[in-house]
Amino acid sequence: MTPSKNSERETSAKVNRRVERSRHTVLSAAFELLSEGGVASFSVDEVARRSGVAKTTIYRHWPTREALVIDACSRMIAEQETPDTGSLEGDVTAILMEIAHLLPTANWSFVLPSIVDTAERNPEFAEIHSRIQRGHAAPLREVLQRAVDRGELPARADASTIVAALLGPLFYRRWFSREPIDDAFVKTIIKLALASL
Amino acid sequence: MTPSKNSERETSAKVNRRVERSRHTVLSAAFELLSEGGVASFSVDEVARRSGVAKTTIYRHWPTREALVIDACSRMIAEQETPDTGSLEGDVTAILMEIAHLLPTANWSFVLPSIVDTAERNPEFAEIHSRIQRGHAAPLREVLQRAVDRGELPARADASTIVAALLGPLFYRRWFSREPIDDAFVKTIIKLALASL
Repeated sequence: MTPSKNSERETSAKVNRRVERSRHTVLSAAFELLSEGGVASFSVDEVARRSGVAKTTIYRHWPTREALVIDACSRMIAEQETPDTGSLEGDVTAILMEIAHLLPTANWSFVLPSIVDTAERNPEFAEIHSRIQRGHAAPLREVLQRAVDRGELPARADASTIVAALLGPLFYRRWFSREPIDDAFVKTIIKLALASL
Repeated sequence: MTPSKNSERETSAKVNRRVERSRHTVLSAAFELLSEGGVASFSVDEVARRSGVAKTTIYRHWPTREALVIDACSRMIAEQETPDTGSLEGDVTAILMEIAHLLPTANWSFVLPSIVDTAERNPEFAEIHSRIQRGHAAPLREVLQRAVDRGELPARADASTIVAALLGPLFYRRWFSREPIDDAFVKTIIKLALASL
């Protein structure tokens, strides 16, 4: 390999790092803006202002405002660890307590209604919304499958109904009735959802 | 009473009827527009165009765009009849089957996410949203209270938790997981929510 090849490679690596950093800065600013005002009041101008990245550069990576919103929303896809306490009730309690703790505080919980709303009328958003939703439900589905595998849960148990019975009441309190989601509430919901298994 | 008084009264009754008709026309157009595009894309100009009522007249009744949106949203407050089948399970089944039937089709179900989203950032909307929510939950609270009165339900049962366990999973399927809400699902949710009572 010639020295000139080496230095070309270094330059290209530097450029990649710079591009990566600038992408990251733009996505952070975009997500922050979404948390504050939802999808409706989102503008590329404001993202450019906050991130200090030129609009032309932003549009080079994301050809439309919508593409940028969708990419920023993808950051909401939860990367929760799946607990392994040895029992279905233990696992479900660990997962729901974490969600109950995140719901009133996490940035994504302020953005999600805006995505739900946009998804009503826009198929691209419906798709990203489905992905976020599958991310939220994934750890529950995993611990339910594990409980089936070790014989704690009958194989005929309908995972999708159990997930709705577990997450639904928490989401209802966060976004619909706006009541507090305390530990006693979460424990009762778990008891009800797993009662007849 | 003089004939002139009589005719004054008739004229004023006519004016009232006309005002009432025009209010109704404006609110219908406003609600239709909300169903199509949510709160964000709502404009008084478009309401004037669709209703054929002059913008100046609209602003005479609703001083701001927001006042008109909120008044149109109030029409979403459900006026459901409360069933009386003689048993808690029968009553709850009748109520939830009706909601399950309305969720995928009723106009309000397309507008609600937009109100939830706006309520995140706007206290006036949070208030109207609470009223809509209390309207949805009212028949359930009534049949639960009746079940307590006749001794079918222990007085210590927490109505607010049971309402969340009943409505939450249906709302979850409608707006979050976007899965169908079939009769079997509704029946399982009722069984789970009332199981440990």
